[in-house]
Amino acid sequence: MRLKHKPWAAEYIQQHPDVIIPNPEDYKGKWSEAFGNDNPIHIEVGTGKGQFVLGMALQNPEINYIGIELFDSVIVCALEKIEAANKPSNLRLLKVDGAKLEEFFGKGDVDRVYLNFSDPWPKVRHAKRRLTHEGFLEIYENILVDNGEIHFKTDNRGLFEYSLVSMNEYGMALNYVSLDLHANMPEDNIMTEYEEKFSKLGQPIYRLECQYKTK
Amino acid sequence: MRLKHKPWAAEYIQQHPDVIIPNPEDYKGKWSEAFGNDNPIHIEVGTGKGQFVLGMALQNPEINYIGIELFDSVIVCALEKIEAANKPSNLRLLKVDGAKLEEFFGKGDVDRVYLNFSDPWPKVRHAKRRLTHEGFLEIYENILVDNGEIHFKTDNRGLFEYSLVSMNEYGMALNYVSLDLHANMPEDNIMTEYEEKFSKLGQPIYRLECQYKTK
Repeated sequence: MRLKHKPWAAEYIQQHPDVIIPNPEDYKGKWSEAFGNDNPIHIEVGTGKGQFVLGMALQNPEINYIGIELFDSVIVCALEKIEAANKPSNLRLLKVDGAKLEEFFGKGDVDRVYLNFSDPWPKVRHAKRRLTHEGFLEIYENILVDNGEIHFKTDNRGLFEYSLVSMNEYGMALNYVSLDLHANMPEDNIMTEYEEKFSKLGQPIYRLECQYKTK
Repeated sequence: MRLKHKPWAAEYIQQHPDVIIPNPEDYKGKWSEAFGNDNPIHIEVGTGKGQFVLGMALQNPEINYIGIELFDSVIVCALEKIEAANKPSNLRLLKVDGAKLEEFFGKGDVDRVYLNFSDPWPKVRHAKRRLTHEGFLEIYENILVDNGEIHFKTDNRGLFEYSLVSMNEYGMALNYVSLDLHANMPEDNIMTEYEEKFSKLGQPIYRLECQYKTK
């Protein structure tokens, strides 16, 4: 993703603590307090410009969504979209690093993890940065409920091939694999910005659902 | 595959016991006797017209290959090709049903199983006939060496999606997955007849290598 410098972003973020939670460590182990209800919590790691997490929040009001995004210049695009949609009460954003999720979520705080069009980090020496690397699978396991699921989609072939191998090796169950999501588009599929762009170009979108096994 | 009735096929097969072994049950547990050496044995289940297994036998003289094919009208095409190539001494065919492999091979007789462009059996009620169904994975395990491998390729998206899930569920290790084999064609890739045809049409060829785990 191209990052533009937006000098106004930091202030704009601070002005919206009702959407971008400024002190997420305070909710560790008690995220129901942030939402005022006990509904399940689904997070998207690398939420980008927010179209997916906003669409999911509007489609599923009985689920609480949290979009995780590190970069100011990108998260403000998500914030703008959420404001324009009248700030659904079941949606929040966190401006934090996906590698540090355990600082903000305790075991069982999260019911599902979404990964969408994550950075492929194609060089082998950068494999550890891929959001489906063993190191990240361990982090998600430490914040998810038992038998929690990861739902992942991408247009990047190399990343998807890697992820199938990585999740299998970690001992996860592959519950569902699609190698061309849009050939049999599920009715409730919410597209990300990338997904709209790349599927228009005729590229297949890959998708999987996998689940941690009881140990 | 379209099957043409070839009334001459049965006689042609009988005339070539040096290639199509007429009494394979006699070699169960002692396949080295069929080849006259102790080299590893790789089998292809559903060998069709034989281009792959013949190409592999010519490329790898230190490995013994056995092509398994049930249908007279198809196996004779493989036989013709093998005759034209002067019958490599490391190649045999068996005209038997893949579901009955345990009648002809004992545990550890086989070092690797190849599955290429297997019938996709797309209807759910036919799932048991797919060569990557749990029932077949159990058969292969019963004839393979410990930690034996299956190498599988296909152009059929549905069958490949199913196979990834099936092999993961069986507890196999996915060692390698390619969702577009010809984008980074391995130098030693031997193409099947189907593979040549479908890759020319621009369809991606899917490939995986998976391995049984020690129990």
